[in-house]
Amino acid sequence: MKPIQVNGRSYQAPAQPTVIVCIDGCEQEYVNLAVQAGAAPFFASLLARGTVLTADCVMPSFTNPNNLSIVTGAPPSVHGICGNYFLDTERGEEVLMNDARYLRAPTVLAALADTGAKVAVVTAKDKLRALLGHGLRGICFSAEHADQASLQTHGIADVLARVGLPKPSVYSADLSEFVFAAGVMLMRTERPDLMYLSTTDYVQHKHAPGTPQANAFYALMDRYLGELDALGAVIGITADHGMNAKTDAMGRPQVSFLQDLLDDRLGDGRTRVLLPITDPYVVHHGALGSYATVYVRPGTPVHAVAEVLRGLPHVERVLDRETAAARFELPPDRIGDLVVLAHRLAVLGTSARRHDLSGLTVPLRSHGGLSEQAVPLLFNRPLADVPTRRLRNFDVLSLALNHLSPRT
Amino acid sequence: MKPIQVNGRSYQAPAQPTVIVCIDGCEQEYVNLAVQAGAAPFFASLLARGTVLTADCVMPSFTNPNNLSIVTGAPPSVHGICGNYFLDTERGEEVLMNDARYLRAPTVLAALADTGAKVAVVTAKDKLRALLGHGLRGICFSAEHADQASLQTHGIADVLARVGLPKPSVYSADLSEFVFAAGVMLMRTERPDLMYLSTTDYVQHKHAPGTPQANAFYALMDRYLGELDALGAVIGITADHGMNAKTDAMGRPQVSFLQDLLDDRLGDGRTRVLLPITDPYVVHHGALGSYATVYVRPGTPVHAVAEVLRGLPHVERVLDRETAAARFELPPDRIGDLVVLAHRLAVLGTSARRHDLSGLTVPLRSHGGLSEQAVPLLFNRPLADVPTRRLRNFDVLSLALNHLSPRT
Repeated sequence: MKPIQVNGRSYQAPAQPTVIVCIDGCEQEYVNLAVQAGAAPFFASLLARGTVLTADCVMPSFTNPNNLSIVTGAPPSVHGICGNYFLDTERGEEVLMNDARYLRAPTVLAALADTGAKVAVVTAKDKLRALLGHGLRGICFSAEHADQASLQTHGIADVLARVGLPKPSVYSADLSEFVFAAGVMLMRTERPDLMYLSTTDYVQHKHAPGTPQANAFYALMDRYLGELDALGAVIGITADHGMNAKTDAMGRPQVSFLQDLLDDRLGDGRTRVLLPITDPYVVHHGALGSYATVYVRPGTPVHAVAEVLRGLPHVERVLDRETAAARFELPPDRIGDLVVLAHRLAVLGTSARRHDLSGLTVPLRSHGGLSEQAVPLLFNRPLADVPTRRLRNFDVLSLALNHLSPRT
Repeated sequence: MKPIQVNGRSYQAPAQPTVIVCIDGCEQEYVNLAVQAGAAPFFASLLARGTVLTADCVMPSFTNPNNLSIVTGAPPSVHGICGNYFLDTERGEEVLMNDARYLRAPTVLAALADTGAKVAVVTAKDKLRALLGHGLRGICFSAEHADQASLQTHGIADVLARVGLPKPSVYSADLSEFVFAAGVMLMRTERPDLMYLSTTDYVQHKHAPGTPQANAFYALMDRYLGELDALGAVIGITADHGMNAKTDAMGRPQVSFLQDLLDDRLGDGRTRVLLPITDPYVVHHGALGSYATVYVRPGTPVHAVAEVLRGLPHVERVLDRETAAARFELPPDRIGDLVVLAHRLAVLGTSARRHDLSGLTVPLRSHGGLSEQAVPLLFNRPLADVPTRRLRNFDVLSLALNHLSPRT
């Protein structure tokens, strides 16, 4: 079959059932330390029989931009999704970026389905479903709303019964387990040509690599991946972003509340700080990440705001819109006048009173900055002709479909 | 008593026995996760009754420069020790920087001892003893050579018998335990006015924060710190540097061998790459850290070498001598023409054949870069008037001696 062209890249149709897995918040140390602890035999096997690479995710190192990059094979400048949340300047309001109307590029998933390939998508949280499933003729549902899946709108019905697990809580490791269990069920019963599984980082936000809870979660994923492997699937694994502690030696969050600090120094209303990590599910991180964008009110010089920001605690880097858009391949019309990154062990907030940290029952771990850009890029097959350039997590589809070694 | 002046800073004589502890390689997560696991009740108590701060160590984030900064209260530009190892351009040879003749500034320890205060120093490895004990009239010995301590040269004899532990192996957690056990013995029997304890990062090079082995090590230190606390000592704790994984998802080291790469691109002999992490004890890290310095042979343009370096994998930043010296407060005559920093998860080597990695029985963890600059700064007493500027690990003596809250 002729390769298809999507967003300027070429993809072979899957010759064997192919599963792409995005493990949310998968700092590489989670895999490494689970393997070291003997908890992840499938992962451990990849070095000898598969391919182990490291890639950079897209900035900001958040869930939505990276999931969309993975399924479009392109950076946010192409697909338009540059956060979970943004200021819709046309509407003049801050909105979730969950709606497919914000998506500016087709997905490889939909394009392959259009050629007749059987495609399935399972996400943990429903927030990603509309975006990942945009234009897709196939199966697409979330673990969160698994009970609501219907043949007409999700391409599948009776999901709970078919998976054989109860509907999971949105704040739990069960949500990700459900994604994998559904993936194994689909591979057994539907055998899709291409399947995309996307988990949630609930565990990674709470537990550091190598801790018993983290190792148990990776052991669980390892068992399901081993099942998919045994079912003959080509598997490509990457992550939307890494994860780091954002605390001091006693586990207290290290936060700069940028809106409070800017209002204090420049006067109220001169700037508007927006946190693109914001989504409906912020209990486990209090909407605190290491990336913020700042809109500057006309009349206030942008460079003056940048200078104030550069002098604030925990601020690692401040870029103007043009530089940030070029450097991080972001859509300039959907970011503020300034992009602000925090140091590895710190996060950025708006105003202290707008962040509810009561849900932080364990020390804050989060992401969003350059320090969470390195992610795993793993395959259960040898690859051929892997490009020598910097690899990205959104190369995973191209590598799995176009670079399988002829030996396999 | 009148405060003493050392390297431009003022220090009160200790009013109570004061212990300064440098925990080698103490990434803050080690403390946080040991506290979370319930393994470190002394550390856990500091938030309520003491003072918990975060500080930056000096660059390069290696042991010798930072230990010397802590005891002189000054950066390497003042004390001259900018690595474990350097190119002595007067002698034209690469040498260890263990000799006190390389030290350009007096220590606060020696200055306080000169006023009649009783001062004691215990280090894990002997490599630091000569530098830390320079000019010191008092007790100064290493756990490594505890059996060789004599009254005449170390200010104390019969150390093994007095401590009640056997001579520890240089590659073991026992080496650090011996430091603490000796500290408790000295506090019981000699009650020094000021004591400096410096451990080794053998455990941190091998085990990630929160793992059972790391928690056990912090539990051990916690018990000894609790004993010093119970003996009435003022305790200030910091670190020489943090620690990060330097591997991919399967624990393989991520290394750029700079000498090989530069020779390949520029021709043999145009540059000389030097790794200031090098010391006689490299089994656990193979002399691989995230900081290197490069000497450029006359006739080769330095900026051309810098450009080549900037294009190499894992290289985060390249600074010329002047910029590096200014930015990191380094002695310009003791660094190369260029300073090279690696990304957080990677290290820099010279030539592959010059690194023996056979001792790496577990995935590489190391330090040297900006990513290991954040360290804890903890006290078992409330402090008053803590400066609001960026704090450094070498503020620990000033804070412990000059900033005790009058309430204590």
